[in-house]
Amino acid sequence: METIAEASEKSDLLAEIQTEEQENFTLRRLEASDYAKGFLDLLGQLSVCGQVSQEEFTKRFEELQSLGDDHFVCVIEDLQSARIVATGAVFVERKFLRTCGKAGHIEDVVVDSSVRGKHLGHKIMNFLTQYAKNAGCYKVILDCSMENEGFYEKCGFKNTNIQMSLRF
Amino acid sequence: METIAEASEKSDLLAEIQTEEQENFTLRRLEASDYAKGFLDLLGQLSVCGQVSQEEFTKRFEELQSLGDDHFVCVIEDLQSARIVATGAVFVERKFLRTCGKAGHIEDVVVDSSVRGKHLGHKIMNFLTQYAKNAGCYKVILDCSMENEGFYEKCGFKNTNIQMSLRF
Repeated sequence: METIAEASEKSDLLAEIQTEEQENFTLRRLEASDYAKGFLDLLGQLSVCGQVSQEEFTKRFEELQSLGDDHFVCVIEDLQSARIVATGAVFVERKFLRTCGKAGHIEDVVVDSSVRGKHLGHKIMNFLTQYAKNAGCYKVILDCSMENEGFYEKCGFKNTNIQMSLRF
Repeated sequence: METIAEASEKSDLLAEIQTEEQENFTLRRLEASDYAKGFLDLLGQLSVCGQVSQEEFTKRFEELQSLGDDHFVCVIEDLQSARIVATGAVFVERKFLRTCGKAGHIEDVVVDSSVRGKHLGHKIMNFLTQYAKNAGCYKVILDCSMENEGFYEKCGFKNTNIQMSLRF
């Protein structure tokens, strides 16, 4: 059986590895240069992304920038590989309901398959949730498949409604 | 038993009443003057609306106007009573996914309890769906309770995912 000292040593070692790992990952706002850092390849792990040129990317990036703080695309970069390994977006919807309240919508959350299990998804979710709260939202919502319900429950979310969709 | 002629006469009469009724209802974009036409009272039938002054309403109205065609609040006015009796909103989310695609989000659909059964909900939904399609969205989505699933199915929507939410 492992002694307390051995367990403690192992725990210190783990913490050290985790700290080193965490230091390799930096969370920040999406930048135009992330086109070259695999941002779209990462999104392609979530859904169909299609061929997007640098020019098309920059155009969309600037459109979103014009929304100011009402739209935020958050990314985590792996500094060692200079690749984007996690992302998620939040936009703030201005309503008349709830005394002209605001609702945060979280969209397009994905973590690169090579770095899953390092809690990067939680980091993204914690950031986006806090962002919506700081923006004055009375709630933050997202749509997901049943299989991801457990992950979002761990992030503090509750299954409240159903999503209906119509594709053109 | 009713004869075919009687049924036909009744049907003509119904059509006439419906046409007259339809003429009383006009569908258009939300205007600043709708504050005085009970727009917020109507929203209050959907969820908590709270006390909103004319000034606060106008401020939010102008904020939404600054989004241009990416946000549209549709209303139906009863011309006889000069009251807003139905509403729904759609906003266009610009994404990187789907070749920098757009997704339409339908929000805050409600019909005044006094005019239900006149298909005003369908009129609102048809308009908002068509609006999203014309705006170039590849899909349009909404969140609702299970009890409203049937209504949205009749509007062509399918239950595809679950909604998760976190309230602050």
